[in-house]
Amino acid sequence: MIDPKDKNLPKIDVEDSQATEHVKVSRRLFLGGSAALAGIASTLGAGMGSSLLSSSAHATSGADSTVGPGELDEYYGFWSGGHSGEVRVLGLPSMRELMRIPVFNVDSATGWGITNESKAVLGENAPLNGDSHHPHMSMTNGSYDGKYVFINDKANTRVARIRCDIMKTDKITTIPNCQAVHGLRVQKVPYTKYVFANAEFRIPHPNNGLNMDDVPGYYTLFNGVDAESMDVAWQVIVDGNLDNTDADYTGKYAFSTSYNSEGATDLAGSMKAERDHLVIFNIERIEAAVKSGKFITLPGSDVPVLDGRKGSELTRYVPVPKNPHGINTAPGGKYAVANGKLSPTVTMFQLDKFDSLFDDKIKPRDTIVAEVELGLGPLHTAFDGKGNAFTTLFIDSQVCKWNIEKAIHAYNGESVDYILQKLDVHYQPGHNHTSMGETRDADGKYLVSLQKFSKDRFLQCGPLHPENDQLIDISGEEMKLIHDGPTYAEPHDCMIVHRSKVKTRKLYDRKDPTFAATITMAKADGVDVYTQNKVIHDGNKVRVYMTSVAPVYGINEFRVKQGDEVTVVVTNLDQIEDVTHGFCMVNHGVQMEISPQQTASVTFTADKPGVQWFYCNWFCHALHMEMRGRMLVEPA
Amino acid sequence: MIDPKDKNLPKIDVEDSQATEHVKVSRRLFLGGSAALAGIASTLGAGMGSSLLSSSAHATSGADSTVGPGELDEYYGFWSGGHSGEVRVLGLPSMRELMRIPVFNVDSATGWGITNESKAVLGENAPLNGDSHHPHMSMTNGSYDGKYVFINDKANTRVARIRCDIMKTDKITTIPNCQAVHGLRVQKVPYTKYVFANAEFRIPHPNNGLNMDDVPGYYTLFNGVDAESMDVAWQVIVDGNLDNTDADYTGKYAFSTSYNSEGATDLAGSMKAERDHLVIFNIERIEAAVKSGKFITLPGSDVPVLDGRKGSELTRYVPVPKNPHGINTAPGGKYAVANGKLSPTVTMFQLDKFDSLFDDKIKPRDTIVAEVELGLGPLHTAFDGKGNAFTTLFIDSQVCKWNIEKAIHAYNGESVDYILQKLDVHYQPGHNHTSMGETRDADGKYLVSLQKFSKDRFLQCGPLHPENDQLIDISGEEMKLIHDGPTYAEPHDCMIVHRSKVKTRKLYDRKDPTFAATITMAKADGVDVYTQNKVIHDGNKVRVYMTSVAPVYGINEFRVKQGDEVTVVVTNLDQIEDVTHGFCMVNHGVQMEISPQQTASVTFTADKPGVQWFYCNWFCHALHMEMRGRMLVEPA
Repeated sequence: MIDPKDKNLPKIDVEDSQATEHVKVSRRLFLGGSAALAGIASTLGAGMGSSLLSSSAHATSGADSTVGPGELDEYYGFWSGGHSGEVRVLGLPSMRELMRIPVFNVDSATGWGITNESKAVLGENAPLNGDSHHPHMSMTNGSYDGKYVFINDKANTRVARIRCDIMKTDKITTIPNCQAVHGLRVQKVPYTKYVFANAEFRIPHPNNGLNMDDVPGYYTLFNGVDAESMDVAWQVIVDGNLDNTDADYTGKYAFSTSYNSEGATDLAGSMKAERDHLVIFNIERIEAAVKSGKFITLPGSDVPVLDGRKGSELTRYVPVPKNPHGINTAPGGKYAVANGKLSPTVTMFQLDKFDSLFDDKIKPRDTIVAEVELGLGPLHTAFDGKGNAFTTLFIDSQVCKWNIEKAIHAYNGESVDYILQKLDVHYQPGHNHTSMGETRDADGKYLVSLQKFSKDRFLQCGPLHPENDQLIDISGEEMKLIHDGPTYAEPHDCMIVHRSKVKTRKLYDRKDPTFAATITMAKADGVDVYTQNKVIHDGNKVRVYMTSVAPVYGINEFRVKQGDEVTVVVTNLDQIEDVTHGFCMVNHGVQMEISPQQTASVTFTADKPGVQWFYCNWFCHALHMEMRGRMLVEPA
Repeated sequence: MIDPKDKNLPKIDVEDSQATEHVKVSRRLFLGGSAALAGIASTLGAGMGSSLLSSSAHATSGADSTVGPGELDEYYGFWSGGHSGEVRVLGLPSMRELMRIPVFNVDSATGWGITNESKAVLGENAPLNGDSHHPHMSMTNGSYDGKYVFINDKANTRVARIRCDIMKTDKITTIPNCQAVHGLRVQKVPYTKYVFANAEFRIPHPNNGLNMDDVPGYYTLFNGVDAESMDVAWQVIVDGNLDNTDADYTGKYAFSTSYNSEGATDLAGSMKAERDHLVIFNIERIEAAVKSGKFITLPGSDVPVLDGRKGSELTRYVPVPKNPHGINTAPGGKYAVANGKLSPTVTMFQLDKFDSLFDDKIKPRDTIVAEVELGLGPLHTAFDGKGNAFTTLFIDSQVCKWNIEKAIHAYNGESVDYILQKLDVHYQPGHNHTSMGETRDADGKYLVSLQKFSKDRFLQCGPLHPENDQLIDISGEEMKLIHDGPTYAEPHDCMIVHRSKVKTRKLYDRKDPTFAATITMAKADGVDVYTQNKVIHDGNKVRVYMTSVAPVYGINEFRVKQGDEVTVVVTNLDQIEDVTHGFCMVNHGVQMEISPQQTASVTFTADKPGVQWFYCNWFCHALHMEMRGRMLVEPA
């Protein structure tokens, strides 16, 4: 494993330029074994070569998930926190949770949902819950670019963006005219201009209560969200509902499954048809239609809305077997598969046929090059970049490894067994993911299978059970289960990113936009938050600007009047990595994180008279407990 | 390791009667090695014997923390979630997080802070934050009894109780007349009648804003909370402030450290004295004083308040070196140690001398039998039950293993080196804990050291770093570091409980008090929630009673008027372990957990007209996504 003290480590750890090289190296290692190792070490220079050697050697041996004390993981895993509303960062292969990123939830520790800066992201009167599903990193030319991670909220119809440099949420957009954003993916090529977001549930438009029984008239929308501004760029009306989505490697197409092409409002109705469909979106045509003004708007937003229902130039509908769920593009960019859920069938599309389909030269199902029968309840498929696919079978509680080329031969009538192995997982898998497998850099080392039930796999914790995220070594011919990972509250989905793709900051940049508005407020008060400790009384509003340097606040006593609206702004002057401070006003529901070089603020009412203590709630120093002060509240 | 399919497993897994036997067995194993194993297998019967064998053999070999796929951990760890406000359940030795228990926080996943049942526990207008510190399990005769875990909230001055059978919080008490509950422990003998809770900050009484500058007149209170009713039984006024607390093994005494005997309000002031103190509370005398009516009450509560300041019969004050922090009773019950923080000194008390101290036969410092110099920043001490102690050295970033008897000899002037080993930890340790080490069943297998900083030990996640909980094998002569565990937002403290001590329910009992009030409401509406699906219109209030059986709700469509206050009550009829359902009303901030055989309810306003979808947010079935329905809201 990697020695964190190796001075050469930062070279591969923080520089994007090494990323593609890493993938090439690990593939060569995989193919060439120890003879290749020697050659690589000499071409790359001793330090980096040896780091890569030790890391890759471990991954290739792949016997277990052990990452010893002080050793670094090889991959970041970005896990959705499901209905916990958060995103989690795991290390792989250890499967340890490294960090939680509050997104749609309220987080007591950091004050997410309590501080002014987080409220500015969440919006006024934000709900207390979220249901985060599909985390996806921004890409350039089909590779992760380490800039953002996007995540949807099914519960309250939102899309959020996380900045990877500080691993915090910086934008949240509520999608108008929709209920329940489910599928989410990014445009892969040439770069992530759009985040694609499926609204799942069909509703009346306008949804004013006057047309609730006109179920056939309901519809839902496919959304293109601008990745930089986070505005909704356009919405496309579709037939049926929308489940999962993915995009191709040319930048021209996105495509979504629909499990309810029937438009039913009940279970039986949505299982009626033997085939539902995949709807394909032509991004160029959508952009052209928006540009030419061929759109409507719906009440409550000025987002251009286009009609992509059957017969539109913007879409094509391909019938696929019953209630399809996952849609997954293979790393080579040649194929995508739709997973049948209520059919044992996975349908494989050849993506370069979509041009002909949109030009009406072929029929929708002419884009299909294989129909693979794998087992009961296929939900999602991952790829190793070496020609193999791994499909979760929900009902069978298995992962099925199958070969893409063999599947095509079988579809063409040849007598070929495309199924290579079935591995039991525990129990009922949903999403699965391979290391780097959702990019063109798929490296075929690890597969994570996310199980919905754990039943007897862990010590019992009452009626509620953890989920079970299992790590599988796929570097050899046979899949090997190497780790059971209990997780809280449906980590619905994840992605696995080589550490070389992620650059983080150890300290905040003082110009970070996160707290720019707070600095502007301070300047209007004539306060330089970095050098001054000052209390501003402004009618019944009080603004308290204080610095923090372990183990003291710049102000340890201030006076207000009962009923005053108090804003406390803390600027952490510490420049030492990991010295985060907190600010907690006891009995006032107020708490926040202030990491090194960060400014954070919180506003509350001083509604109780007398001495009110505040303290540092993030352990910072041997004298941490002594880091405290008093707000003296004169009675009203 | 344990084979979960072993039919004999439940015997040791769920029966308390095996617990003490376990400890005896593992000690014999430790002493006797493989010869002992054979004997035990024959005395205990083949099935259970072999389970114990494999489990204990692993723990004794102790080479690493690996718990293979499907293998069960040997210990439950109950971790405070620090300023995340929650409690976490970990498995040891794998250090995997098995479950989160929402306590003082809002939890999007389960709807804690959103559902009616959780609001009844949290109270009206509960804060969104908490700062949970010290989890401790209820005890009988000095052993864990598996009934409750108690935890304090420093941020909003509360004490909570978690039921271990369902691993949910069932009571939260706000401590009156206080700010910031810090130290918390339970009475160990004869049973946990009281939970002892230290209020840290000295404040004026009454705290009405008229006496804020009379700092010498400030005081704080030591609290006895009735473990069953969760009412505050009594409060004791003390000199100085209060930090950590512990209790003895006779049930007669509790004792707390004070880092601010000076009563200062600033850092310099609270470091002035070379000695602060340990204050010892005489529980029998406190109970007698309450009984005899010798108490006052403070405004805003009728809790009996006793004066335990210097000179009182209820307390004794023992001077100990500078700003002591942790106070820890050794498993044998003979000694307790106070950790000096700003002094390298750990002070050891012989607890059977406390009777004489309270009878004024000896002086306070006559209770001290050793003063141990270990290194810089001693904060907390744990014990292996074999005569050794393990003290965290915050500034040195080390754990120091030392021998109790040798320390006494040294204090008596003998030339003895009591320090056995110092082990580097990474970095700055706070609390530490041995397996079962806070009970008379200490088994000397594992030590967990909770580090406040992780710095370079994990992949970087931006300016905020995880903490680092390290697992150390202490079964041999030398401590061995075997695992680094990243954790979120200061897991301040933990405790390590053998799995035989914890019995959990797999399904809710339909008579569970958690939802009894909801059942009463249903009965008043004439509804049997277990058999009926019914909508009750009551003016502008609507109560929707529905069942759930994967993958359908009993009601998939109901009508209300815009502005109605809607209460949805869901009863999960599934009887299969792990089949938890959710209920999420899209765009309404409403979400909740309904585990098998549970009833849960949530109230919200139907403020938007038109079709409003709800769905099951806890994955339950292959047709989980199809488990949904519509609230039809007629416009106002």
